[in-house]
Amino acid sequence: MTAAVAVELVHNFSLLHDDIMDHDTERRHRPTAWTVFGVGAAILAGDGLLALAQDLLLEDDTLKGAWAARCLSAAVLRLIGGQGADLAFEKRDDVTLAECLDMAGDKTAALMACACSIGAVHLGAPPTLAMALAGFGAHVGLAFQLTDDLLGIWGAPEVTGKPVRADLRARKKSLPVVAALNSGRPEGVELRALLTSPEALTEADLVRAADLVVAAGGKDWAESEADAQLAAANASLASIDLAGDVRAELTAIAEFITARTW
Amino acid sequence: MTAAVAVELVHNFSLLHDDIMDHDTERRHRPTAWTVFGVGAAILAGDGLLALAQDLLLEDDTLKGAWAARCLSAAVLRLIGGQGADLAFEKRDDVTLAECLDMAGDKTAALMACACSIGAVHLGAPPTLAMALAGFGAHVGLAFQLTDDLLGIWGAPEVTGKPVRADLRARKKSLPVVAALNSGRPEGVELRALLTSPEALTEADLVRAADLVVAAGGKDWAESEADAQLAAANASLASIDLAGDVRAELTAIAEFITARTW
Repeated sequence: MTAAVAVELVHNFSLLHDDIMDHDTERRHRPTAWTVFGVGAAILAGDGLLALAQDLLLEDDTLKGAWAARCLSAAVLRLIGGQGADLAFEKRDDVTLAECLDMAGDKTAALMACACSIGAVHLGAPPTLAMALAGFGAHVGLAFQLTDDLLGIWGAPEVTGKPVRADLRARKKSLPVVAALNSGRPEGVELRALLTSPEALTEADLVRAADLVVAAGGKDWAESEADAQLAAANASLASIDLAGDVRAELTAIAEFITARTW
Repeated sequence: MTAAVAVELVHNFSLLHDDIMDHDTERRHRPTAWTVFGVGAAILAGDGLLALAQDLLLEDDTLKGAWAARCLSAAVLRLIGGQGADLAFEKRDDVTLAECLDMAGDKTAALMACACSIGAVHLGAPPTLAMALAGFGAHVGLAFQLTDDLLGIWGAPEVTGKPVRADLRARKKSLPVVAALNSGRPEGVELRALLTSPEALTEADLVRAADLVVAAGGKDWAESEADAQLAAANASLASIDLAGDVRAELTAIAEFITARTW
């Protein structure tokens, strides 16, 4: 329970700082913290949540508390590295698919792996169990990111809370886009020209860009990669003994957060 | 040694984020990180140093590593609280001297207390030794802050690297200023009117403001409080057994960082 709270604190630390970096003014239909309280207060609030998360785990002053704290700090360091890569990618035109997958692994999957395994680590469960749960979380995390990126282009606005093709309008280097750009197909070349054009993108441009991602194979690739990651997650879960209701709950969560509703 | 590095990482985390919050463009005669690399990168760099500091201590996977990590996170939480109070004070005209001292205790003294005692904590030294070293650091930290605030008004530019009376120009609610504002003397009232005036402050205004801090007793109070804190620091050190060279080094550092050179 303590460990779950600590992970949730880290997640919110990350959102607070991320929204400043990305200049995002809305999250979950509400104004972001920095727009309401100022950049300084939002930085501090994030700092406080991060420090509190670590301290919370160390309140358990046995070695188990330290193990859980180490598990969390490893995830936090990967998360920050992933955010740094994401920031650096904005200024680059030559991001490869491998770099993009690594970034998603660090930025999204590491904390999910931690969330799924930190309870086991904290209780001193056998390493095989903790590792399998971490593997489940890491694969679900990648499946989630791929799904989120697909929804960022083709998701229904009533589901995503964002206008359709929002990620294309923001010229975001999401996974399906980077897959299309690196496809070696002429549609990828046309997509790159469109997304790097200095002109503002019209609605017609956005429709065309989405079509180009499809034609260059970016959508197919992301869908099959998301399915493969979900399958790997379930295989990881199948490798360990778990109470039936725990297994069912984990499987249901994985299905829920990787559902492609459009 | 590891513990000293961890404290240094936290100190630099704090400077990175502080410079963004205070819109400071220079530190130690060099441009601040956010002005060179952008706000996002500077936020992330700070986050990374904080996470790394905690992780570093947990590399010692005995309970001693966890003790040191807990000692650090307690200081970090007070540091962040102090930064938050400092930020909030900027928008207030009724800050009391007690609030201001509490803020300095959190923002400056807590990390110094940690720096002076974390080595002992990490090695599993007796609590009386660790507590006395923490007390030494806390008192030196307050003496340092009082001295820094005095130098921010009367310090020689060649020592501080800032123009004389820089803190008054920035209308900073430093300790001697808050002492003067709360002195109940007519000079304190005149000082408040000057510092809250919507007009830009002229050189003559700054000279007058510095004179008013003196006349209202703010300078005398800060000097005697700094001396009292330094005496308390030395008393704390005198209460424990220490090797002669260690005691001499700690005393010399305390003298050095609280020297009033103007």
